[in-house]
Amino acid sequence: MNSFGRLFRVTLAGESHGPDIAVVVDGCPAGLPLAAEDFAADLARRRSARPGAGTTPRVESDRPQIVSGVYNGRTTGSPLLLLFANQDVASDAYKEMKTTPRPGQADFTARVKFGGFNDHRGGGHFSGRVTVGLVAAGVIAKKLLAPMAIAARILEIGGAADYEALLAEAVAAGDSLGGVVECVAGGLPVGLGEPFFDSVESLIAHVALAIPAVKAIEFGDGFAGARLRGSAFNDAILDRAGRTATNHAGGVNGGITNGNDLVFRVAVRPPASIAQPLQTVDLETGEPRELRIVGRHDACIALRFPVILEAACAVVLADLMLLEGRIPRIWN
Amino acid sequence: MNSFGRLFRVTLAGESHGPDIAVVVDGCPAGLPLAAEDFAADLARRRSARPGAGTTPRVESDRPQIVSGVYNGRTTGSPLLLLFANQDVASDAYKEMKTTPRPGQADFTARVKFGGFNDHRGGGHFSGRVTVGLVAAGVIAKKLLAPMAIAARILEIGGAADYEALLAEAVAAGDSLGGVVECVAGGLPVGLGEPFFDSVESLIAHVALAIPAVKAIEFGDGFAGARLRGSAFNDAILDRAGRTATNHAGGVNGGITNGNDLVFRVAVRPPASIAQPLQTVDLETGEPRELRIVGRHDACIALRFPVILEAACAVVLADLMLLEGRIPRIWN
Amino acid sequence: MNSFGRLFRVTLAGESHGPDIAVVVDGCPAGLPLAAEDFAADLARRRSARPGAGTTPRVESDRPQIVSGVYNGRTTGSPLLLLFANQDVASDAYKEMKTTPRPGQADFTARVKFGGFNDHRGGGHFSGRVTVGLVAAGVIAKKLLAPMAIAARILEIGGAADYEALLAEAVAAGDSLGGVVECVAGGLPVGLGEPFFDSVESLIAHVALAIPAVKAIEFGDGFAGARLRGSAFNDAILDRAGRTATNHAGGVNGGITNGNDLVFRVAVRPPASIAQPLQTVDLETGEPRELRIVGRHDACIALRFPVILEAACAVVLADLMLLEGRIPRIWN
Amino acid sequence: MNSFGRLFRVTLAGESHGPDIAVVVDGCPAGLPLAAEDFAADLARRRSARPGAGTTPRVESDRPQIVSGVYNGRTTGSPLLLLFANQDVASDAYKEMKTTPRPGQADFTARVKFGGFNDHRGGGHFSGRVTVGLVAAGVIAKKLLAPMAIAARILEIGGAADYEALLAEAVAAGDSLGGVVECVAGGLPVGLGEPFFDSVESLIAHVALAIPAVKAIEFGDGFAGARLRGSAFNDAILDRAGRTATNHAGGVNGGITNGNDLVFRVAVRPPASIAQPLQTVDLETGEPRELRIVGRHDACIALRFPVILEAACAVVLADLMLLEGRIPRIWN
Repeated sequence: MNSFGRLFRVTLAGESHGPDIAVVVDGCPAGLPLAAEDFAADLARRRSARPGAGTTPRVESDRPQIVSGVYNGRTTGSPLLLLFANQDVASDAYKEMKTTPRPGQADFTARVKFGGFNDHRGGGHFSGRVTVGLVAAGVIAKKLLAPMAIAARILEIGGAADYEALLAEAVAAGDSLGGVVECVAGGLPVGLGEPFFDSVESLIAHVALAIPAVKAIEFGDGFAGARLRGSAFNDAILDRAGRTATNHAGGVNGGITNGNDLVFRVAVRPPASIAQPLQTVDLETGEPRELRIVGRHDACIALRFPVILEAACAVVLADLMLLEGRIPRIWN
Repeated sequence: MNSFGRLFRVTLAGESHGPDIAVVVDGCPAGLPLAAEDFAADLARRRSARPGAGTTPRVESDRPQIVSGVYNGRTTGSPLLLLFANQDVASDAYKEMKTTPRPGQADFTARVKFGGFNDHRGGGHFSGRVTVGLVAAGVIAKKLLAPMAIAARILEIGGAADYEALLAEAVAAGDSLGGVVECVAGGLPVGLGEPFFDSVESLIAHVALAIPAVKAIEFGDGFAGARLRGSAFNDAILDRAGRTATNHAGGVNGGITNGNDLVFRVAVRPPASIAQPLQTVDLETGEPRELRIVGRHDACIALRFPVILEAACAVVLADLMLLEGRIPRIWN
Repeated sequence: MNSFGRLFRVTLAGESHGPDIAVVVDGCPAGLPLAAEDFAADLARRRSARPGAGTTPRVESDRPQIVSGVYNGRTTGSPLLLLFANQDVASDAYKEMKTTPRPGQADFTARVKFGGFNDHRGGGHFSGRVTVGLVAAGVIAKKLLAPMAIAARILEIGGAADYEALLAEAVAAGDSLGGVVECVAGGLPVGLGEPFFDSVESLIAHVALAIPAVKAIEFGDGFAGARLRGSAFNDAILDRAGRTATNHAGGVNGGITNGNDLVFRVAVRPPASIAQPLQTVDLETGEPRELRIVGRHDACIALRFPVILEAACAVVLADLMLLEGRIPRIWN
Repeated sequence: MNSFGRLFRVTLAGESHGPDIAVVVDGCPAGLPLAAEDFAADLARRRSARPGAGTTPRVESDRPQIVSGVYNGRTTGSPLLLLFANQDVASDAYKEMKTTPRPGQADFTARVKFGGFNDHRGGGHFSGRVTVGLVAAGVIAKKLLAPMAIAARILEIGGAADYEALLAEAVAAGDSLGGVVECVAGGLPVGLGEPFFDSVESLIAHVALAIPAVKAIEFGDGFAGARLRGSAFNDAILDRAGRTATNHAGGVNGGITNGNDLVFRVAVRPPASIAQPLQTVDLETGEPRELRIVGRHDACIALRFPVILEAACAVVLADLMLLEGRIPRIWN
């Protein structure tokens, strides 16, 4: 379903071309100062930074309407509901896609799953636009986690760390690029994460892989670590606080944070919607079709992912910190 | 917590050196034929296949005691409880580790999280031994999913597809190796997976990353796909059933199965317990310590992972198939 | 938390004097025709029918804004978000109550629980106004359950079946009355309800007792049945469909519906806010205070409960019918 | 499903005539002293106290086998699994009931729900025997809640407070009696319970109505309160701690504990299995049948309910106290 979290619970709703994207945050402690302005910085990071160079020209103000859960500038302890208006909507481009699904998108799967009743415009509820709600929840989570530092950055785009030329070239060619984004959380206590199913890795992977376009996640050395010997992979323990000489494990042992930096990376696939013709099928006739996408799309969605990944990390950590009693139920 | 699943719900309990490992499966349809013998094949695959060449000499019969949920050879619709006796237990080796935590294990994190009250013998509840319960749940799930084909295999050990020599060498050197294991599920319907948080990738990643030693997961092309252009990554749709010419997406679009093979891989870290001396700290004195592990351990736990990964996949798919009404509540 | 349901999941948000009351319904099948008009009848039943005779003069139009989950007049399969504007708000009356809690209300408990940060105006999130969201969810559930018949009615007000005079007298005296409301659901299949914790009685009681002012619930003969002998209480089974000669059990055996009418009653306490002076304490000084309530209140909230109780019943039954696969995931 | 609780999570498994009844308690803090002896007193209270006078002659030792979660006499923080052997089993008496369902039992509903695959012997998973697991979870919860006082008592049997003669008469007549049991919890903090769906009344009602034979629950004045006027029902607040002059509300306002005694009562129906002939139907032929029950049964199950009700109350309060951070995650 569209909810996640045990104590800090995030619910997302809304479709790309509907009136609003919505997020409900239940379980946030009462008394946390919160205003619409608090969301501006992270939502600006999520928005299209460079319309000519890889990100969609769709522009939204993303200033939330706080419907509930805040009174006199502080959270009330009741569920927070935030709305983000979808203002810059151009739905005409999507008419064709109802019966000729775009390869690599949810058009086909959503149509089958929901019997064709899904709102297909702009990807509907499957649009990356829905992540505005996750980023907003992340803003609240980060406030609860301060001064813990959660910071994500782009490691590579199209396989390269220096990717500006690649990006320009891909945009010019009507193509798209994927990327790898890394998130590091520092200042964590030892002991976050629950045995087996609710390991910190499981929970973060759950949220991170829910983000449209994320196809992989690795913690610490990840796949490279699978090629190391144990003698190289093991992180020697240096002191009673658990500080280690290296951090191949990415800050997690046995699914539980060990006090070192929590480190993970995700793979973001190249956007499926490109200007080049796409091979698909007409679902009504069964005939092959060549589809030309004319909507507004990101040539590289990964560019916008650092703040989304930080949010995925923050909502999980806020939940685990509440579980450990390390965030008070009443904020002072 | 130690439970996962919405309709097909798996709960794990037990510690490595306690009397039994236990699994509760709630939500299994009534009427499914089930006997202790059904678990033999998969549990044999999970056990130490080659004591001299990479897997632990600990040997357990792993024949389950079916405590509840089966009557006259068929499931009753009530929760199934299976017990697996821990018979070949050697706890003496673990005395030292209570205060000198093994690097790369849960010794330190579990001690802090549980105030030293955790059962540290053999890793306690953090032991890979607990996966016997997951494999058992997977056996039940596979029966519900038949004739769907779920098959995992080792792709590489120590970075190589041909790894026999590497393995022998590592064992001789008192070292350990990681590996990469791939799982493919074929015969899936279109439409498994829920919007956003319960994408099929999120759910499988959640369970897979709960398995001790798994540090990464990728679907379809995964990290390699992040280096492709959209024109190369997109899977052209061939027909109204959604069959695609390629499968870079690993059988999932928008978090929902598209009817092609579901493909994912996990990275398994090299076991932390090796014969070479390990650098750690005495938690009572704070002094550095060189630890020599004398317990019985796997030199390469990844060798035993295919069946565990299949189980992780099967329990998620059984849950999603029940959600879609594609597995009947009463089995005939 | 503010969510309930496993497959048909209802989340409530909003405060009495905030901009809107909100309800999210996740898990509703796609394809169900749904429009703002569908909610009118039930929400009118919930509203103040008789301003002079027992119900509050506060008037709201209660026409929902459908923010998400509906496209072209049918549900999309994505979460539904409905907003109900709070228009007729008079907050001045509540200033005093921040520090002098009204007896019998959540003023004191909410203040302590949330450290005084709760929105106390009109009871905030503890207001009966929040039930507008539950009634709306009930409207959707009833559409899914049709032609199942769910009907509630007032059994007694102030202890009497003929209560008009009592009501007028209580209003005149500045006092309030409680009541007993009965709900009957007919046309249910045998088999709804899960073993032990998710018995149909448990689930309905859970939701019913969440409704502000409900203090008791009984199924079938309830408390009176505890005074019968088994020979009188037992419902003789008449045929293979499970039809019984009597219905002392209220349509439930072993927590599972038996195909006869599901029957339950709730006790609704008399509203705490009355025109007569109330004894309380000034939380800042600790001094006793006599409080005079000047807001607009119901003299008998039970009058508005039949439709709320139907909603509580309907959301539970929709969830259980989905669990049994008796409501299709795609509506036709 | 067979699980309940958010942080202190109880899962029940087992059938009346299977080898064991099992309970898993997940989320119990580490370090709590726990031994098999701790369960003796409460389980003795649950057992048949008076074989000749209203309770079944079936006798079980009810000494638990602690399979997991305890090491060196203290909880480990991992899930607790306790087994209670079913030793005194007489299944022959149940052969007939497979096709001629006992009125008032789950025989018919379970058969339909599970397609006849349910273990019908002794009621299977629907037996009151399963409450041994709930009582055991309650023992653990009570230890966490100490010195909070949770005490239940019988208010009436067969409608009378002085019921010894009634009971003897009913046993002699081959009949059965119901009863009313009251539970009071004292020493609670203000603030337990969550807004709306997880009100303390909702949670307790959920668990209480899961107990076989419970048909009603009321808090405070309950149904009698619905007949009072607000001026009589309101509990005047006496001091800043929230102490009230009366306790009509049963210690709960707005779903949240107010610091006064939490008071609730349940109605327990008279056992359906009586020595008098019962009217039912042969499910195979459809012919009416007169059934004579020859198994061992309670003439008044309510006699055994005080400790079961305490357990229902305790597991909910333990969960809520953990949620509020009022029970430490590590016990000292």
